[in-house]
Amino acid sequence: MSLHQINPWLGEPPIGWMSHVETSLQEDIGPGDATNRLLRNDLTCEWRMEVQQSGVLCGLGILQYLFDPEPENEEDFLNLNAQDGTHVRQGDIVAYGKLNAKTLLTRERTCLNYLMRLSGVSTLTSKFVHQVGAHGCKIIDTRKTTPGLRLLEKYAVRCGGGSNHRIGLFDGILIKDNHIAAVGSITSAVQSARLSGNYLLKLEVECETEEQVEEAIQAGADIVLLDNMSPNTTAKIVEKHKGKTLFEASGSMNLTTVEEYAKTGVDFISVGSITHSAPSLAIHMEVELIP
Amino acid sequence: MSLHQINPWLGEPPIGWMSHVETSLQEDIGPGDATNRLLRNDLTCEWRMEVQQSGVLCGLGILQYLFDPEPENEEDFLNLNAQDGTHVRQGDIVAYGKLNAKTLLTRERTCLNYLMRLSGVSTLTSKFVHQVGAHGCKIIDTRKTTPGLRLLEKYAVRCGGGSNHRIGLFDGILIKDNHIAAVGSITSAVQSARLSGNYLLKLEVECETEEQVEEAIQAGADIVLLDNMSPNTTAKIVEKHKGKTLFEASGSMNLTTVEEYAKTGVDFISVGSITHSAPSLAIHMEVELIP
Amino acid sequence: MSLHQINPWLGEPPIGWMSHVETSLQEDIGPGDATNRLLRNDLTCEWRMEVQQSGVLCGLGILQYLFDPEPENEEDFLNLNAQDGTHVRQGDIVAYGKLNAKTLLTRERTCLNYLMRLSGVSTLTSKFVHQVGAHGCKIIDTRKTTPGLRLLEKYAVRCGGGSNHRIGLFDGILIKDNHIAAVGSITSAVQSARLSGNYLLKLEVECETEEQVEEAIQAGADIVLLDNMSPNTTAKIVEKHKGKTLFEASGSMNLTTVEEYAKTGVDFISVGSITHSAPSLAIHMEVELIP
Amino acid sequence: MSLHQINPWLGEPPIGWMSHVETSLQEDIGPGDATNRLLRNDLTCEWRMEVQQSGVLCGLGILQYLFDPEPENEEDFLNLNAQDGTHVRQGDIVAYGKLNAKTLLTRERTCLNYLMRLSGVSTLTSKFVHQVGAHGCKIIDTRKTTPGLRLLEKYAVRCGGGSNHRIGLFDGILIKDNHIAAVGSITSAVQSARLSGNYLLKLEVECETEEQVEEAIQAGADIVLLDNMSPNTTAKIVEKHKGKTLFEASGSMNLTTVEEYAKTGVDFISVGSITHSAPSLAIHMEVELIP
Amino acid sequence: MSLHQINPWLGEPPIGWMSHVETSLQEDIGPGDATNRLLRNDLTCEWRMEVQQSGVLCGLGILQYLFDPEPENEEDFLNLNAQDGTHVRQGDIVAYGKLNAKTLLTRERTCLNYLMRLSGVSTLTSKFVHQVGAHGCKIIDTRKTTPGLRLLEKYAVRCGGGSNHRIGLFDGILIKDNHIAAVGSITSAVQSARLSGNYLLKLEVECETEEQVEEAIQAGADIVLLDNMSPNTTAKIVEKHKGKTLFEASGSMNLTTVEEYAKTGVDFISVGSITHSAPSLAIHMEVELIP
Amino acid sequence: MSLHQINPWLGEPPIGWMSHVETSLQEDIGPGDATNRLLRNDLTCEWRMEVQQSGVLCGLGILQYLFDPEPENEEDFLNLNAQDGTHVRQGDIVAYGKLNAKTLLTRERTCLNYLMRLSGVSTLTSKFVHQVGAHGCKIIDTRKTTPGLRLLEKYAVRCGGGSNHRIGLFDGILIKDNHIAAVGSITSAVQSARLSGNYLLKLEVECETEEQVEEAIQAGADIVLLDNMSPNTTAKIVEKHKGKTLFEASGSMNLTTVEEYAKTGVDFISVGSITHSAPSLAIHMEVELIP
Repeated sequence: MSLHQINPWLGEPPIGWMSHVETSLQEDIGPGDATNRLLRNDLTCEWRMEVQQSGVLCGLGILQYLFDPEPENEEDFLNLNAQDGTHVRQGDIVAYGKLNAKTLLTRERTCLNYLMRLSGVSTLTSKFVHQVGAHGCKIIDTRKTTPGLRLLEKYAVRCGGGSNHRIGLFDGILIKDNHIAAVGSITSAVQSARLSGNYLLKLEVECETEEQVEEAIQAGADIVLLDNMSPNTTAKIVEKHKGKTLFEASGSMNLTTVEEYAKTGVDFISVGSITHSAPSLAIHMEVELIP
Repeated sequence: MSLHQINPWLGEPPIGWMSHVETSLQEDIGPGDATNRLLRNDLTCEWRMEVQQSGVLCGLGILQYLFDPEPENEEDFLNLNAQDGTHVRQGDIVAYGKLNAKTLLTRERTCLNYLMRLSGVSTLTSKFVHQVGAHGCKIIDTRKTTPGLRLLEKYAVRCGGGSNHRIGLFDGILIKDNHIAAVGSITSAVQSARLSGNYLLKLEVECETEEQVEEAIQAGADIVLLDNMSPNTTAKIVEKHKGKTLFEASGSMNLTTVEEYAKTGVDFISVGSITHSAPSLAIHMEVELIP
Repeated sequence: MSLHQINPWLGEPPIGWMSHVETSLQEDIGPGDATNRLLRNDLTCEWRMEVQQSGVLCGLGILQYLFDPEPENEEDFLNLNAQDGTHVRQGDIVAYGKLNAKTLLTRERTCLNYLMRLSGVSTLTSKFVHQVGAHGCKIIDTRKTTPGLRLLEKYAVRCGGGSNHRIGLFDGILIKDNHIAAVGSITSAVQSARLSGNYLLKLEVECETEEQVEEAIQAGADIVLLDNMSPNTTAKIVEKHKGKTLFEASGSMNLTTVEEYAKTGVDFISVGSITHSAPSLAIHMEVELIP
Repeated sequence: MSLHQINPWLGEPPIGWMSHVETSLQEDIGPGDATNRLLRNDLTCEWRMEVQQSGVLCGLGILQYLFDPEPENEEDFLNLNAQDGTHVRQGDIVAYGKLNAKTLLTRERTCLNYLMRLSGVSTLTSKFVHQVGAHGCKIIDTRKTTPGLRLLEKYAVRCGGGSNHRIGLFDGILIKDNHIAAVGSITSAVQSARLSGNYLLKLEVECETEEQVEEAIQAGADIVLLDNMSPNTTAKIVEKHKGKTLFEASGSMNLTTVEEYAKTGVDFISVGSITHSAPSLAIHMEVELIP
Repeated sequence: MSLHQINPWLGEPPIGWMSHVETSLQEDIGPGDATNRLLRNDLTCEWRMEVQQSGVLCGLGILQYLFDPEPENEEDFLNLNAQDGTHVRQGDIVAYGKLNAKTLLTRERTCLNYLMRLSGVSTLTSKFVHQVGAHGCKIIDTRKTTPGLRLLEKYAVRCGGGSNHRIGLFDGILIKDNHIAAVGSITSAVQSARLSGNYLLKLEVECETEEQVEEAIQAGADIVLLDNMSPNTTAKIVEKHKGKTLFEASGSMNLTTVEEYAKTGVDFISVGSITHSAPSLAIHMEVELIP
Repeated sequence: MSLHQINPWLGEPPIGWMSHVETSLQEDIGPGDATNRLLRNDLTCEWRMEVQQSGVLCGLGILQYLFDPEPENEEDFLNLNAQDGTHVRQGDIVAYGKLNAKTLLTRERTCLNYLMRLSGVSTLTSKFVHQVGAHGCKIIDTRKTTPGLRLLEKYAVRCGGGSNHRIGLFDGILIKDNHIAAVGSITSAVQSARLSGNYLLKLEVECETEEQVEEAIQAGADIVLLDNMSPNTTAKIVEKHKGKTLFEASGSMNLTTVEEYAKTGVDFISVGSITHSAPSLAIHMEVELIP
């Protein structure tokens, strides 16, 4: 039986993960696993999960949930060698155990689909974090997430050392060009937002010019988003207004350019690709039937 | 009002797509869009969707659903210049229209998240399809899909010119190494599967050696999966057994190696990366408020 | 406390049975059992389930779920004398136990409604199976099931010794007269279906004449359905084409005519009435309160 | 386009029927109709629904819902020749219309499954009603219904001319032998029930002896259920106590015995078999494609 | 670990309470408690629940559910000093325990929201019950409940010593002025209702004049609702017709007027304000962290 | 047919209100309205909604949804004389129309339950707002709402002229005494919260002493909650620290004391009773059947 010496989660698990996993199992199993029927119900197997690329793990709590032995099968077990956020290298065995064979084979693919995708997000995030590490700014995510996976992907960003921007449209105010155009000016947009929003939400203004930045700060923006500006312009603005507000740099960051932005002194750099274009981390499952 | 001259879908839309979209909207909006409250309810805007990279589109039916004007706003409209499966180039405007501003701004991100991800899958699939095109074999997907997005991603594979392997564990029998080990031999696994499965499901056997292939064919496998074999071995096997069964090549295909496998004469090549590691296609939304 | 020495299920339980049972309980109990309120909470009773007609049981896993004692009531128990698929005779006690009286009385009707209906299906199926037993062909079900009960009724068919045709429209291709008419010919229908369907699905063609059978075989049908043909015609066709495809006989089978069809050498006989017109098996529950 | 001159429903439709039908469609279609993909999207067909046995119809509202033309297809239509509760004979065309072929073929089986099963219940009910017609007593149903179909089957009973007993455990109080044993006597059971139940619920007592009947009447039972008594005993009791309460006869009624019970003067006769063992009414769908 | 010596519920808990509580937790927590993240996961606290006003408790089962310790935390516990329906005074500690701090702080508000509201209903009900106590009539509720809380509020009414009128439109027949106007007369309304309703439902008629009362009794109403009549008129009617039917007085009752109505001899007095306008009972939670 | 000249909603409707209303209808109707069955289906009535007390309306969008005529009934209509937030007096007709009688009578109670409760919240809120109006501070709500009704009640607060505190635990950080005790000091609690929370959430600290206020401001709290302080202390603190942070006064406010707090110069006064103890606003529905 499993002892769970290691807590697989890093901080708080994303709300609703369990029903997400159940829905995905259902998506795969549908009205029944047509192949598994040829197996005996009492067949047992040993398994181990091996990483095939360097990276940062995410999703071990889901693995634990899917492969946790039934209490009545006393010889079965599950051992974790890592937790979410652990940096791993090719060949590392991150978990191993003993379990009913039908259960394992039916759930194997769903488990790997989560683990590989979420670890892909964590791994790419950690690369960005590593690039900016020395400069004291935070890598943050965006709302460019896979439909239906937002909370899980934002958790993966945290596992990779990143921080989270707002979760959705409801827990933060971000005034963009269209909001400004609609209301007439940054100043009046900020004033309207202060009146209409819940007063515990901060107010960020997206700016494309230095003049806009000045107006936003004047209007009392809690955070200013510098949209698609060059590192030079960014540095100039940050230097001039340091301390009056917080700064977020945004726009097509990649692993090469991000450090230049980090050097400018911005507080946050948001990177869409860590959620919308992270390749899966290759992970493999070895299964051996016990005769 | 929209005329819908173009059907956005390629063949049948994936079952359940509409409630998937509603759930994703809810994920983003939560208890309310905190920024949008500063806009007037009657504000209208013109928008256009511009592709920023060459690729193959997927998800225009979702775009149409999200940005379709209310019948009572008679001046609003939505026009499509493309449908799912259309090859597009940087700068192409794939759709444009006129819509209530609050509706548009609240749904913009969700729309792009679908369109960019699904078009990413279609685009990568079409590259594989292009590589093997002359050799008469099909590119097929796997069960390595994003949890919760299987039907949508399998639809995106079709839009990219690929074909679908089984949807899940329920609509096809695929006997793998562990099933064989559990039952003792390929022959007895095939026999058990014929008895236990619904008789309208075909039976595929995963083989790692030539001996296994011979036994699988002897046992009556409808399809043989050649797992991680070299192009040479693959070619030799296909040549020897052509016509007795169908062949699927599988295992870490990439855009460079896939053609060699296509030349071997296999019927199908399955590629996990078209769903698990396709980068998003860059798409941009231009919005202009109408004063 | 229950020991569960006997596994009530025959092979794999039908997916989703537990939430089906919960929904049915809710259907009966609604906002509360108005009669049960007059009972003391701590009242216990002994019960036994007695069959009142010969037949084949189905639904004991549901009985076990509904009448399983709470672990904290140590003297309570549940014993099974049979499992799904067991042939029983009038007077047989199939299960007995001790349980909280309110729990039992509130769940009794729901339990019997499942057990009687599913055992009715199993019993009628087993009669058909018995009729054709010597002739080596399989009795299979159809999609003529009770709305909402498909997976349960298909499980009951298996308990009665029958086999399952496709579960629904998604796990098998069955080309009928209208599909043929729509496309122009059997040949082109089969070709289209091969292209449009998932390639792990077999292809069955419904034929009404010998010419159609020939064309279907020529076109490569995996299975040919002989629709409403006489035993003579059926025999003639099977003899002529044995080995080239599989044959299913279909059309208003009853317990008298089915054997004649079995003698023709067909592989499958599908019978709609085993699901759409099976009478319930009479089962009775005896309850005795413990003073 | 459909004109709906005839209201298909008899009185009020059963609550929730629409989502019941949607769930059943989903049960059949699952992730997609694998055969229908070979049809063109714009193919149209004419259809008619023909009864193959005499009986009483039920389910035409479901037929109308499933086969109702889209408003934009102006030449399509649906015509009803009957409504729920109509007595029909072999060969009667109960409905006909014109519709998109894919829509029709995907929904045909689900439609027939409802219509045949519900009409089976209505038909058997009407036979019982016919048997007792002259004697002024009502045929009523029981809670012995198919799990998940209770409201639909109780509606079918009404279509067959029967009446409904309570819908579930919540809208009526029925004190049975076990309740009596638990509390000690009929008198105290009735008193407890009066106190614990909602006071708008009537109170029925199940009696097996004449003494029990006397006690139940004395205690104020609104209705007395005469359980498994002979027609003679039933007649004697009813004669003696006529006017003091209402009487329900119950227990293994069939079409032969029911009239004898009707003659005894009871107010209600409950018959379990009208819901738990009614065979389907044979109904056939003719489809002709329009070239 | 908790011992649960006291059953918190008074009689049967309201059906579905558990999923109601889960939904309310979700309403408050949404995608995560943003403050709680700063706490250590292993922090424990002692808590006690103190009443700040005299009243009658309701909702302790919900408290127990929310604050019940995990079995693996052996030192944690939960003790109840009261159960639903207990009369408490300012300063009474109704429950106390030891629990994980994050769990407690996240659930505290939801727990109090239930407890304060439901105890408010119980408390106001008990005041009405006290006013009429000596006169042998029952205080009953109405359908004027908070949307979504009906079963919980009707349970709270029982905890306060009141009784329940029908739960909804389905478990009782109440003929009002509009029904009478629609059908033409009380007599024909009663007759129609007898025919159309389930026969285990009683029939109540709302009357505004003495003539209507006479007609309702003549027509066989099981209960007569005297709508907005003065105590004098009420008394006169009850005296004249005592024993022929049951009487319910209704219409803007308050704690001053209710006793006059109770003296008239009516069987029931229905009071809308006990559910629609009961102020919350003030209850406070003390929490002390264990270092 | 309805023209909807007046938009019933004040700003944005609360997310999910429509499914909330459907659930409440279901709660009341259950398996069917047992009384309504006696009415003819084609009966029409005129109705009008009359307020019986002065107050502020909330819920007219729900009324419009429930009583909106079917488009095919051309003579039916619905007219609004008010919108949410309108101040009304006894006798005001807020809406009137013509509708199918069965529809109206089945939905009447559910409609009134929403309208009376929500208008009760708006009305009480507006009284508090009126008390503090001259002093430039805002009345805000708390999380002390009815379980399941949070978004609706917070909308009602806005209709009454109040503002909203955070919606739940997820869209604002509020550090209370227990969080402070857990971490050791206000300073470290604020620092931890800044690190662990989404950076678009403001940070409020609950203080009970002047020393705590100083520390909170020093630590950078965006808002300081002055918990249960006297008006004098509150005034002293606000005067001393005006401009450094925002201040919220909280603790057992009533209509008498609230003005004293408003005079202190605080920015917000939070009042639990506006949601947890607002009595319903009396509203009446007149219905007249059209012969």
